[in-house]
Amino acid sequence: MRIALDAMGGDHAPNPIVGGAIQALERDPELEVFLVGEESQLKKLVPADNPVVSRIHYHNATQVVGMDESPAIGLRRKPDNTITRSWQLLATGKVQGIVSAGNTGAMVAGGMFTRRFLPHVDRPGIATIMPTMRGPSIMLDVGANVHPKAEHLFQYGVMGEIFARHLLKKEKPTIGLMNVGAEEGKGNELVRLTQQMFASCELQGNFIGNIEGRDIHKGVADVIVTDGFVGNVILKVCEGLFEFIMKMVGKEVIGALDQEKEKGLGALHKLINTYDSSEFGGAPLLGIDGICIICHGSSGERAIKNALGLAARLARAGINKLIVDELERMPQITPPSTPSI
Amino acid sequence: MRIALDAMGGDHAPNPIVGGAIQALERDPELEVFLVGEESQLKKLVPADNPVVSRIHYHNATQVVGMDESPAIGLRRKPDNTITRSWQLLATGKVQGIVSAGNTGAMVAGGMFTRRFLPHVDRPGIATIMPTMRGPSIMLDVGANVHPKAEHLFQYGVMGEIFARHLLKKEKPTIGLMNVGAEEGKGNELVRLTQQMFASCELQGNFIGNIEGRDIHKGVADVIVTDGFVGNVILKVCEGLFEFIMKMVGKEVIGALDQEKEKGLGALHKLINTYDSSEFGGAPLLGIDGICIICHGSSGERAIKNALGLAARLARAGINKLIVDELERMPQITPPSTPSI
Repeated sequence: MRIALDAMGGDHAPNPIVGGAIQALERDPELEVFLVGEESQLKKLVPADNPVVSRIHYHNATQVVGMDESPAIGLRRKPDNTITRSWQLLATGKVQGIVSAGNTGAMVAGGMFTRRFLPHVDRPGIATIMPTMRGPSIMLDVGANVHPKAEHLFQYGVMGEIFARHLLKKEKPTIGLMNVGAEEGKGNELVRLTQQMFASCELQGNFIGNIEGRDIHKGVADVIVTDGFVGNVILKVCEGLFEFIMKMVGKEVIGALDQEKEKGLGALHKLINTYDSSEFGGAPLLGIDGICIICHGSSGERAIKNALGLAARLARAGINKLIVDELERMPQITPPSTPSI
Repeated sequence: MRIALDAMGGDHAPNPIVGGAIQALERDPELEVFLVGEESQLKKLVPADNPVVSRIHYHNATQVVGMDESPAIGLRRKPDNTITRSWQLLATGKVQGIVSAGNTGAMVAGGMFTRRFLPHVDRPGIATIMPTMRGPSIMLDVGANVHPKAEHLFQYGVMGEIFARHLLKKEKPTIGLMNVGAEEGKGNELVRLTQQMFASCELQGNFIGNIEGRDIHKGVADVIVTDGFVGNVILKVCEGLFEFIMKMVGKEVIGALDQEKEKGLGALHKLINTYDSSEFGGAPLLGIDGICIICHGSSGERAIKNALGLAARLARAGINKLIVDELERMPQITPPSTPSI
């Protein structure tokens, strides 16, 4: 199992990135990691006496797309950047997957430029795992595609269903469409067209129709389908609200305790660790011919370790073959024509 | 100060609705409430010996639009429903404001049908107050308008700025535009056009550009401008996540305590009360010629009491005159033409 890791991507790169790679290698004896970045700099971060060094390869890249840089400009002006070099390793088959905590837009754009999509997939989507009262759900797209068509959302549902079935081990995953109300006819044209596509396809038994924002954490749907604009906002709102509430709980609840302050604080930190974004390591970009995991810019060692683990699991599960087979089984789905209102 | 209250609107109506009205009347000696609903039924809920009864009026309405009923169908098939009757009281000047915890879509549609918008306002928007690390912010629209144009979002910003200045007492409120990234050029065409309108208007000094989902609870912007689809999803995601986290804190953090379980639980409940939606009572529908407060379907006495209080505050502050004056001062803002890409 060979995975390329953008060693220079992320707010704190390269130290925690390389550290996470070493942890992942220690955990998975079949894993080989290609560290992409300045070879001389990266070599200094790997302890020579660690037995995993034999499974670390270096792939030189002298440039880095900045975290806030325009993806298009960054990729064009810096041809030797770590993201482009990682995608090239994937495109040439030297690795089965790539992982980066660098500029998300550049990762997505890199995929668009250098790599073909899976057959029957028109646009890849970023999938993220959401904790819920009934265990993890998967939500997509969370930012790859802010102008989707109904057929894109439909394909996200198909890919998400396969992910939920094979990776989250849900027997018959339910698919919900993010909307502003549960009733049919609600929302904008995009969701109404998408709804019609799901209702008339092989997955109609999985499709539970519209869901609302408050249904996500209740675990009403195993697969939450939404456009990249809304999904990205949801993901970041959850991040911000989680942080806000945890601070308030620390101040108001733990602060109200006397003797058991420390015990409470320990439990609170444990809870924060369970639900922080490091838990799943990163978000897969589904629909790409290869495995691609996009990590949070703030990723530390644990997130990178888990992202490499997720990449390996996806590759071993043969997720892409499952997606292509499933889409092939679907009768040619075309979006219903726009109703004239 | 005369406010009409839809006594039959809400999941638990009419008992907590009438109870909330009595509390509001006890708090505000200048308030008069018109209870809209079956007069005979409502009268039984008001204790005859309470001195506030002299400030309760009844306005008979024999029908109710169901909480999950299609707003258009409900309003058409039930001409004597409480929402239509409430709007009529406002339209004829018998009351200065209306409050309902009933069907949100029907409340908005009722406003569209029976009441003129304020001059210079093309579409009303629902504004909701969000708690943040720097005190309350206002977000709009959260569901009145799921197909907005750039000029609608611009008008939401102007109305929100006035609300933040006069009701939230922010000296120079900042206005942020919800987007998928902070950099200019991010997002879809709607936000790009809206951005140009803010950047070239009198409020450009207040406008801080794009904000992301995670900025909301940090309090980065006092006014968060977004379309009704995204805003509605955000609002409900926050509701669901808040409930989810509070349950987890109860289980994992309070559950880890021994002697101080009760003390911790008390502090947790206090925290939940501070941030639950009853705190502000409801969400004003801004841009309507009159005061309109839309409450959560689950509203209890406290929410209704606070919603009536908010309606009275908005009316006393003369919010609508302030909005009209401000929009009048703006040079005629027209949306920039669509760039040909």
